Amino acid sequence: MKIKVGIVDTMFSRVDMAAFAVDEIGKKFPGTRIARSTVPGIKDLAIGCLLLEKKERPDVFLALGMVGKADIDRMCAHEASLGIQMAKLLIGKHIVEVFVHELEGKDEADLYSIFEDRTRKHAVNAVLLASDPKQLSKFAGMGKRQGRPDAGPLVVRGKER
Amino acid sequence: MKIKVGIVDTMFSRVDMAAFAVDEIGKKFPGTRIARSTVPGIKDLAIGCLLLEKKERPDVFLALGMVGKADIDRMCAHEASLGIQMAKLLIGKHIVEVFVHELEGKDEADLYSIFEDRTRKHAVNAVLLASDPKQLSKFAGMGKRQGRPDAGPLVVRGKER
Amino acid sequence: MKIKVGIVDTMFSRVDMAAFAVDEIGKKFPGTRIARSTVPGIKDLAIGCLLLEKKERPDVFLALGMVGKADIDRMCAHEASLGIQMAKLLIGKHIVEVFVHELEGKDEADLYSIFEDRTRKHAVNAVLLASDPKQLSKFAGMGKRQGRPDAGPLVVRGKER
Amino acid sequence: MKIKVGIVDTMFSRVDMAAFAVDEIGKKFPGTRIARSTVPGIKDLAIGCLLLEKKERPDVFLALGMVGKADIDRMCAHEASLGIQMAKLLIGKHIVEVFVHELEGKDEADLYSIFEDRTRKHAVNAVLLASDPKQLSKFAGMGKRQGRPDAGPLVVRGKER
Amino acid sequence: MKIKVGIVDTMFSRVDMAAFAVDEIGKKFPGTRIARSTVPGIKDLAIGCLLLEKKERPDVFLALGMVGKADIDRMCAHEASLGIQMAKLLIGKHIVEVFVHELEGKDEADLYSIFEDRTRKHAVNAVLLASDPKQLSKFAGMGKRQGRPDAGPLVVRGKER
Repeated sequence: MKIKVGIVDTMFSRVDMAAFAVDEIGKKFPGTRIARSTVPGIKDLAIGCLLLEKKERPDVFLALGMVGKADIDRMCAHEASLGIQMAKLLIGKHIVEVFVHELEGKDEADLYSIFEDRTRKHAVNAVLLASDPKQLSKFAGMGKRQGRPDAGPLVVRGKER
Repeated sequence: MKIKVGIVDTMFSRVDMAAFAVDEIGKKFPGTRIARSTVPGIKDLAIGCLLLEKKERPDVFLALGMVGKADIDRMCAHEASLGIQMAKLLIGKHIVEVFVHELEGKDEADLYSIFEDRTRKHAVNAVLLASDPKQLSKFAGMGKRQGRPDAGPLVVRGKER
Repeated sequence: MKIKVGIVDTMFSRVDMAAFAVDEIGKKFPGTRIARSTVPGIKDLAIGCLLLEKKERPDVFLALGMVGKADIDRMCAHEASLGIQMAKLLIGKHIVEVFVHELEGKDEADLYSIFEDRTRKHAVNAVLLASDPKQLSKFAGMGKRQGRPDAGPLVVRGKER
Repeated sequence: MKIKVGIVDTMFSRVDMAAFAVDEIGKKFPGTRIARSTVPGIKDLAIGCLLLEKKERPDVFLALGMVGKADIDRMCAHEASLGIQMAKLLIGKHIVEVFVHELEGKDEADLYSIFEDRTRKHAVNAVLLASDPKQLSKFAGMGKRQGRPDAGPLVVRGKER
Repeated sequence: MKIKVGIVDTMFSRVDMAAFAVDEIGKKFPGTRIARSTVPGIKDLAIGCLLLEKKERPDVFLALGMVGKADIDRMCAHEASLGIQMAKLLIGKHIVEVFVHELEGKDEADLYSIFEDRTRKHAVNAVLLASDPKQLSKFAGMGKRQGRPDAGPLVVRGKER
């Protein structure tokens, strides 16, 4: 049976992150069901997931948000993230947090590509966590990154794998 | 049936934020019921919402507060905000947190306008979250802001929506 | 019926904060019952309230403590405060946190007056929260302060209340 | 009936803190029962207390640990401490947290004396919290310290107690 | 009966930490059963442990992760760690958190050796916590370290053990 992915995104974000996730899931895992809701900002994501859980019972969640440039935005991200930690344990399912900081990009095009790359890769991660988690173990310790190219495994002379 | 909005505000705030919320909801969503209580400061908002929940069972909450100028006030805001994260998950409803930092404004008039704009916009968000959440999805990723003009979506050449 | 106020204070504090609270409540709300316990320091306040709740079932709590001068003391205050946020939600009652930072005062006399003013005002707040919460709504957004004179409402030309 | 004190200490600490606690309790409160367990580091103290609670049902706990010199150690202490705040509320008993920062001492002898003084004094506090909490109220607001001499009450002209 | 160790590791890490743990446990405690899962990054470890608990009921957990170089990575580690604190208390079992910061090493070889040493030692700690916790008490206050050589007990003239 096909799994269902719950996607919660925000109006605050300057990029339509959910569109990337929906597109990626549609291409890589056709037939996957999607339940979606939108909240104002990242601090609303944790409860957004809990409410989506009650209504739609997805198998896994994506919590998508952008963190603004101001100092206060970093604190908000921290609070949002702790709320999401609590929500995961309360719901008992993975919520893959996809946060992009507005300051991460060198310029707007770079920032946009981080949004797209990170969201698409984590959308795949979310589906695999719920449907075939053994797939992730193949990449354990491999320095996988989302938003940027993989860091790759640490290579130390005499410690080759 | 009309929804009920729970509004918890503070004596610490230097602006009557609840008045904006009540006015906005009355104009945009006439007939909406309002349940209100006031607490001393922002650290009392989370439990204030929980107690209002027990008495009035609103469909959604607005937690309205001002953050003072001192360093210690930022820490208080952080603690208050984490309390609100916990309260949301415990109650199982949205609590839209509307915090204005006293230092945000360029001057008092600017600060006042932030109070008004942020509170009015989030009052609308709160009502929609409880009554018609699909309305918010229209603005997903659109860079919506409260307190200031919208940032708008990120525009990158070749990535037009 | 008269309410019961639970007061938890600390041995760490350099001022007998509970004495101010007891005196103020006795003068302003004669007949109010008081349940009291003392813990070593501010990190013990949250569980102190929970244990007092089990034994005495007060209607509202005052958690009274002093924050020392060292950097580490600020971190302790933060941890204590988060514990109190959790305790409020667990008990389902207001715990009015009255913290005075040893560094707040210009000198010892000023510091002492902050202790007294903040504790007395919050003792009144605590009683009203449990007995007549509508009284607090009269002061919503009025810039009330404890420890110092009120900041008062923000006055902006053309926005008079 | 004699109370039982649960002591959880760490392998990370460079001083055998539990030995001070056991010695002090034995001298001051002979016949007190002690239940003890050791965990790797301070982040393991909260769950260590919960597991000791399940096995031994002590009346009160001592969580003993050293915080290292590095920046990262302070963050660990913060996380450990928040875990202990949660454990207290979950267990519903006092857990007296005795943390010594490796950087607190002027030299190793001074550091050692802080370890001993703080642990011994808090061991007494823990026993009293469980057996005779009224004893602590005698020292409310008296500026009691553990690890260093007492700060004592704030003395302000005209405000003598 | 042989215990079962739950190991949760990440794709983000640049070293295969689980391999060290599995190897060490196999050598030191042959016959120990291992249940394993992999998550994207450290913020997924807490819920990863909870899900492994539901499926496999291990006796103890190892949560293995690398913390990246950026400022934001430290915040992530903090959030991940608080999630793990909550998970420990919710599950009621030890989760030995093994985090290595990418910046800890002087160079890549040094970093690699920290990964290996810390993971191997904590793998032993985890097994002992679940199977024979009294073994750890022998090292209480002995300044044990993982990742680096032991700091050893504080030696102060006249305070020899």
